Order: sequence, then C-alpha cells, then structure tokens
Amino acid sequence: MKPSFEIPSIDPTLIPKLQQAIDQKTKPRGALGRLESLALQLGLLQNRLDPAVDHPHCLLFAADHGVTRCHSVSAYPREVTAQMVRNFLVGGAAINVFCQLLAVPLTVVDAGVDADLPPHPHLISAKLARGSADFTAQPALGESLATAAIAHGAALSDAIKPLNLLIVGEMGIGNTASASLILHLLTQIPLDELVGAGTGLDADGIARKRAVLERALERGGRSDDPWQILAEYGGLEIAMMVGAILAAARRRVAILIDGFIATAAAAVARAIAPSLDPYLIYAHCSAEAGHRKVLAALNAHPLLDLQMRLGEGTGAVLAFPILKAACAFLNQMATFADAGVSDRAPLP
Amino acid sequence: MKPSFEIPSIDPTLIPKLQQAIDQKTKPRGALGRLESLALQLGLLQNRLDPAVDHPHCLLFAADHGVTRCHSVSAYPREVTAQMVRNFLVGGAAINVFCQLLAVPLTVVDAGVDADLPPHPHLISAKLARGSADFTAQPALGESLATAAIAHGAALSDAIKPLNLLIVGEMGIGNTASASLILHLLTQIPLDELVGAGTGLDADGIARKRAVLERALERGGRSDDPWQILAEYGGLEIAMMVGAILAAARRRVAILIDGFIATAAAAVARAIAPSLDPYLIYAHCSAEAGHRKVLAALNAHPLLDLQMRLGEGTGAVLAFPILKAACAFLNQMATFADAGVSDRAPLP
Repeated sequence: MKPSFEIPSIDPTLIPKLQQAIDQKTKPRGALGRLESLALQLGLLQNRLDPAVDHPHCLLFAADHGVTRCHSVSAYPREVTAQMVRNFLVGGAAINVFCQLLAVPLTVVDAGVDADLPPHPHLISAKLARGSADFTAQPALGESLATAAIAHGAALSDAIKPLNLLIVGEMGIGNTASASLILHLLTQIPLDELVGAGTGLDADGIARKRAVLERALERGGRSDDPWQILAEYGGLEIAMMVGAILAAARRRVAILIDGFIATAAAAVARAIAPSLDPYLIYAHCSAEAGHRKVLAALNAHPLLDLQMRLGEGTGAVLAFPILKAACAFLNQMATFADAGVSDRAPLP
Repeated sequence: MKPSFEIPSIDPTLIPKLQQAIDQKTKPRGALGRLESLALQLGLLQNRLDPAVDHPHCLLFAADHGVTRCHSVSAYPREVTAQMVRNFLVGGAAINVFCQLLAVPLTVVDAGVDADLPPHPHLISAKLARGSADFTAQPALGESLATAAIAHGAALSDAIKPLNLLIVGEMGIGNTASASLILHLLTQIPLDELVGAGTGLDADGIARKRAVLERALERGGRSDDPWQILAEYGGLEIAMMVGAILAAARRRVAILIDGFIATAAAAVARAIAPSLDPYLIYAHCSAEAGHRKVLAALNAHPLLDLQMRLGEGTGAVLAFPILKAACAFLNQMATFADAGVSDRAPLP
C-alpha cells in the first residue's frame, strides 16, 4: 500500500509578523536579500517567529543501479559505490570533511549497495535489495520495492530526534542516469538536455548513456505518475530520499536539497505531495548538465552555484551556514528602536 | 610620500603539485568546482601545499562623506554612520551576528566618523578627519590625507597577528557615491550603470545622486591614476581599506572582498599594485547596481550571489565557510590510494 503524507500547510497570518520583525532590524529594508526570504520561509515552515536550524542531520543514502551491470553509463565502475561507502565510514570523503567542519551529524544508509558491508556505528543497514534492476530490461524497482523504500526512508527520517533541518545526500554509481529519466518525465524537459557527464563521461560516453536511457523509455513508457516513474526508473537511494523528505515535511522540518539526484527525489516527492514546496530549500546548482533547467522548471532558486557535481550532500552541507545566518540575523540583530539608529522615513 | 607595497609573486612550480594533490582526492576530477580553484589559489598565495584560513579577521572601517553635508545621495541621514558604529560596538548589527556565528574576530575602525565616539575595547580610533570633504566643491581627501589613510590602513592590517585571511568591511553613509566615481574611472564603465540605490534610494533619488556625481566629475576631472582618483573622490574608509588590502598581500595573506565599496577599494589597490590579483577573493555579488558589471570588468568571479546590499563585510563573512571548506577538503580528504577506491582510467 502506498504510504500517504499529510504535510501541514503554512499559516499566512504569520507572514506580516515575520516581515515586520525582519524590517525592524538595523539594516535597510531588503538589504539582506536571500537571507531575508530564507528567514521568512523558515519561520513559516516551522510555524514560529524565531526559526532555528540548530538540529541539522545529513542522511546519506547509497545504492547500486542495475543498469550499470550491462551498460556503460558512468565513468567509474559499479564497485565504487561500496568503496565510497567504506570511505564514508572511515571519514575520508568530501561529505565527511564538510560535515565535520560545519558540525552536521552524518548517517550513512545502505539503501541497496551490491556488497556485504560490515556493521558500523555510523551505518544503517536498510538494504532492500542488492541494487535496482536494469531498467532497459524490466522495472528498476517495481511498485512494491519502491513503496517499501519510501516507507523505509520515512522511518529513518522520523527516527532522527531532535531535528529541524534534514539534509539528504546520495551515492550510487549510475544514479544520474536514473535521475535524468525521472526529471525528464516530471518536468517535460527533453531527455537530451538532462543527460550529462555524471562523474566524468566524455562526449562519446554521454551519447552511449543517452542511447541507453532512450531504450529504457521505450520499454517502460512515459507515465507522469510519480509512483509509476519511481517504480520503473528509480533507485533505492532515490526512493528512500523521497520518503525521508516527505516525512520531514510532515513534522515541519526544513529540507535542504543537494544536487541533481536529490532534486530528482524532491521532484518525485512534490509530485506526490504538492503542499511540500514550502519545506524545500534548494542548496546548490550542480554543474551536471540540465540541473539549472530543472531548477528553473521547479521555480527553485538555489543558494549556491559553485560548479560542484559531487553529490553526497556536499552542496547542501555547504549551504547550511547560510541558513544559520538567516536564523541568526532574525533572532539576534538589534532593531532600529533598540539601537537608537535613525530609520529612513517610512514608506507611504 | 606615497607608500609602496612589494607584493610577493606566486611560485608557478607549486601549481602542478597542488593540482596533483587535489586530483588524488576521492572524488571525480573537478567535481568540487570552485572549491578546487580556491584551494589552488590559497595554496599559491600562501606558498604552501596545506593552505589554511584558521586566523581570519574582519576590519570594519567607518567614515563620513562630505558630499552628504550638502547633497542628497543616500536614503539615510549622515548621523546613521555614527549610530551604526555604536551599534557595531554593542553587537547589534548584521556583521556582529555573522562574525559571532562564524567565529571571525571583528575590529571596528573609526577612519573618520563625524562624531565623538567614546573609547571602546573593540574600536580603533584612526580618525584622520571628521569625514571627507564634499567632492562637488573640492578634493574629497587630497593627496596627503589619502596617503595618510592608506598608511594607517596598512599599519592596522599589519598589526593583526596571526592572520591568514583578511576580511574588509565598511560603513559610511554616502559611500556608494564615492565608490561609483572610483569604479567608473578605473573600469571605464559608464557612470549611469554604476549609480544605484545604495541603502534604498528611489528612481528620483538615484537621478539626483547621478547629477551630483556628474558635477563632481566636472570639477575633479577624469584621471586614471589611482592615487589621484582616491584623492579627488575617495573616502577615508575606502583609502584605509586600500592600505589594509595591500599590506595583507605583502605578507601573503588572502583578502576576502565584500561588496560594491570594498570592490572599489580593491580596484584602487590593484591599480596601485597589479601583482595583487592572486591575493584577492571576491566574496559576493551585491544587488547594488553595477557591481556585477564591475566584477566582470575585473575578471572576478564572486563566490556568492545572495542579492544582499548591506556592506559592513557581511557578504565576505558569509563566504568564509566556503574558504574553510576549500582548505579542509585539500588537507583532510582521503586519496584514492588511501581509501582503496578505484580511480577511473587516467586521462591520456
């Protein structure tokens, strides 16, 4: 059975109260730009005048993809998924370094890695299968596995307490291929524009990847139903991210969306629950081809544009200080009255 | 006498060593985008393979501008400069909140505020005059005051020890007017495109401001000599920033440039010492009209674009975590060999 997610709506009466608090701070109106809109968004989604992001957590979902068994869609071999999970567990990857730097707790989830991973205190084993199936030959997940993965992701998200900012990241050789199909079907952007280099394909490699994805579409068809799209073309890490996102919003937790693959999960989640949008904060425009167009199609305005294309949650964790700054200015700056600073003449 | 600044040149033999260290980290080559170019820049300018920004400091220079005595070039009254300095000293401004959040020490410099400010442990009194003169009637600083301000700024920068990242910020009602003139003369961008709302002028206010700046240019002329430009149109806070920047680069300290006004100081500094460029990191593209064009003219690529227009160093301090992340990935990530992760086939 498909899980359902009741996402609380925001309280519009809070908007003028938050805006007034923002405008009374000792700065010209609007002078903090995106930080002001972020402070407003965080206040609304948390339903409070003093929003906080003092309990962040990064859930990093890893899984393998069936398509990589028989087709060349990545510059790196399939084994790298498991190798990188081991690297996460010993703290050697970029996401480890950034999470440590910015004091963000990190949990790695084995959502379906094709390897036997030994138990580790920072690894949650949620392996529903040893990766997805090859979507050129059969549904990648099928309905029951997709549904189970969403439920697992939701449960993992719900288990983090306290939490007021969820960061979702991913690792999975081949997962830009899956994300391209999902985003093509959900945004109607031509597939060509959404097939990119991933971890570093050259032009020939991208052409091969595109041909593989076109075969997958011929087999699986062109639904616009998010459950169906996930069942046909998804990955286990993507499906678990969908569940984690929806469950976080259900309890008024802000979600910081990383790059191309996390955006695919967000796109599925918002197609399942359109009232999700106020809870999503897009962190970073990836250098992966098409992400900029996808963000525009979703009316999303990422906070950072650092030409990164690594995934793992790295772009999202780097945007975390901006969210902290948005809360800090709202909660800590003096008002014109407090500070004895002359405000300009009030606007008519 | 004009101070001279010997800026050390970078060692090109370090480039391949740094690039190799970056490429051996467990990530696809180039996947950390701007963080990789930042790590390279920081390594080169600090002349080491393990660059660090663990000793940052924000110097916030405040001064008044003569033009605000007789002309309307700002949405706020002249008194706000001193009021905001008092706000900085009690910790109520945006720069205080961001510096505290990100553990950046902050020192406020009275470079020429038109008020008697009481002594305070976080205030350095370097008041060379009670503001600049009105540049529509006479040189704003004149050569000797401009030179003295540069020397003072340099001495203040030199006094911060240890230091490996200098952040310069400013406060001064009317200082976008001064910065517009400086940047117009140094970049040749038409004045029209560089006159903006500042703290919040409306269209009529911007037109009045533009007319005032055109009168100033008629009086003071159109030199392309940075010393002359500073003497005619500068402010004391801008001149001290120029000195602080040049002195920092002289001892291989990276400088994080904030918004429109800090960019005017950087433009003067690099016109004085063209070898300065490798030491400058542009933090944020301001919403102030023309900053984007100025950055393009300087071939500068700011790290952030958050539609802020506050000054004080706020955009620069918000970019500080990105610099920390650039150093952290280079110094802390595992290599492919360390982590037992398969690298892709080496490029031919």
